Amino acid sequence: MATKHLSKDSVEPPKVLGSLRFYSMRFCPYAQRVQLVLNAKGTPHDTVFINLSEKPEWYLTIFPAGKVPALIYDGKFLSESLILADFLDEQFPEPPLWNSSPLQKILDKLVIESFGKVGTAFYKLIMTSEKVEEKYFDELVASLIPIETELAERGSTFFGGDKPNMVDYMIWPWFERLDSIDPYTQGKFVIPFNDKFPKLAKWKNLMIVDKAVAPYYLTPEKHAEHFTKRKAGLPAYDI
Amino acid sequence: MATKHLSKDSVEPPKVLGSLRFYSMRFCPYAQRVQLVLNAKGTPHDTVFINLSEKPEWYLTIFPAGKVPALIYDGKFLSESLILADFLDEQFPEPPLWNSSPLQKILDKLVIESFGKVGTAFYKLIMTSEKVEEKYFDELVASLIPIETELAERGSTFFGGDKPNMVDYMIWPWFERLDSIDPYTQGKFVIPFNDKFPKLAKWKNLMIVDKAVAPYYLTPEKHAEHFTKRKAGLPAYDI
Repeated sequence: MATKHLSKDSVEPPKVLGSLRFYSMRFCPYAQRVQLVLNAKGTPHDTVFINLSEKPEWYLTIFPAGKVPALIYDGKFLSESLILADFLDEQFPEPPLWNSSPLQKILDKLVIESFGKVGTAFYKLIMTSEKVEEKYFDELVASLIPIETELAERGSTFFGGDKPNMVDYMIWPWFERLDSIDPYTQGKFVIPFNDKFPKLAKWKNLMIVDKAVAPYYLTPEKHAEHFTKRKAGLPAYDI
Repeated sequence: MATKHLSKDSVEPPKVLGSLRFYSMRFCPYAQRVQLVLNAKGTPHDTVFINLSEKPEWYLTIFPAGKVPALIYDGKFLSESLILADFLDEQFPEPPLWNSSPLQKILDKLVIESFGKVGTAFYKLIMTSEKVEEKYFDELVASLIPIETELAERGSTFFGGDKPNMVDYMIWPWFERLDSIDPYTQGKFVIPFNDKFPKLAKWKNLMIVDKAVAPYYLTPEKHAEHFTKRKAGLPAYDI
C-alpha cells in the first residue's frame, strides 16, 4: 500500500505478484468507488497514488489521459470507475454487488446515473463557483430530495436492501464529502440531514462503519482541508 | 411499428400486449443502438417515435428529460442507450452480445467509450461548427485511426470476432452517418475508407447486410437530408 502520491520525476514501483495494480488518488471520489469494490470483495491489490497536478511521466506513457482510477489486470490497462466496478463484480463474483435480477440491476444503475446531479451541484458549490453561495447550496440540497425519496420508497436500510450493494458504494464517496461543507464554510452551510433527509442520515451512519467503507473513510475536516488547498490552487495530496 | 413522430398535442398510442414499448427517434444514433440490440435478439417491441423538437406532453409527464431512447419493461421506465443495451443482453440472453470473459468485456466497453471521440468530432464537423471546415474533417479522420488499429490488432472480421457483438452494434450508428458527409458536402469531403481504413471499409460493407443492421439502415443521402434540414433549424423527422 502506497502512502505518498508519485509525481513528475518518479519511477513506477515494481508490481506485486498476485496482486492487482491500482492507480488512485487519495481524495478522488471516482477512485474511491473502485477502492470500495476492492474492499467489499477483499481483492488483493497494491495501490500507486498519482499526483494529478504533477503527473508522473511513466504514467502518461502508459495512459496519456493521465486519469485515475485505473487498474492493471492480466497485463491489460483498464479505466473508468463504473466500468471498473462492473468488471470487478464479474471477475470476483463474491459477494455479488449487483442485484441478480436484470430489471433491478438497470433500475439501480439509473439511480447511480441520476445521482450525477448531486456530484455536479456539490462541485459547483465548493469548487467551480467563485465562492460558496446560498443559491448553489440550495441547488445541492434540492438535488438530494430524489435520493431520499428513492431510499424511502425502497423501504430498506441500504439501497441494496439489508446490506450495501453497488448503488450504496457508487454514491458513497460524495456523501462522505457532503459533511465537509460544514468545516469548509466554518459552519455557515450544513446539509440538514436529520431534518430533511432522515433516511439518508440513518444510512450515512451505517455506511461509515461498513467494513468496505470504514478502512478508507476520511473525516469531514480532512476533506475540507484538501478542498481548501485545492481551491487556493495548491492541491495537497499527502495530508 | 410506428411510422410518424408524435409531437406536442399527440396522445400516447395504446401499448401492445407481450411487447416492449420502445421510445425512439428515427435519426437518433443512440436510439439506433437499442434498436440494433432488439433486432439482434429478436425481441418483440412496439416503437413510438418522438418528435424531439416538439415533444409530446404525455412523454414529458412520464420522462421530464424527454430524451430517447427509452423502454418500458414490466411497468418500469428505463433509459440511457448503453445501460439499456446491457439490460437487454441480460434479460434476453440469446444470442449473447458481450464476450463471456469479464476481461474481454471490459476491454470491449473501453473501445466503445473511446469511440466517443469519433461521435464528438463528427457532430462538430457537420452540426455545431458554423460550416464544414477542413480542420474539423482532419480531426474526424484522425479520430478513426485508433478504431482501425483496434480492428487490425484483433485480426477478425468484426470487433466481436466472426460475427458482430456489442462493440460492433454500439459504434455502428456513427459509421452509417459518416458516409453522409459526402452528399452533405456535395462531395467536397469524403472519408477515405478504402485508402486509409481498409479494415473498417471491409467491416462496413459486411455490417450493412447484417440481419440486425439491414432492416434499419438508412442511405447516406437520407441521413444527409436530415442533417441539412436540422442544420437549417427545421429538423424533419418523417422523411
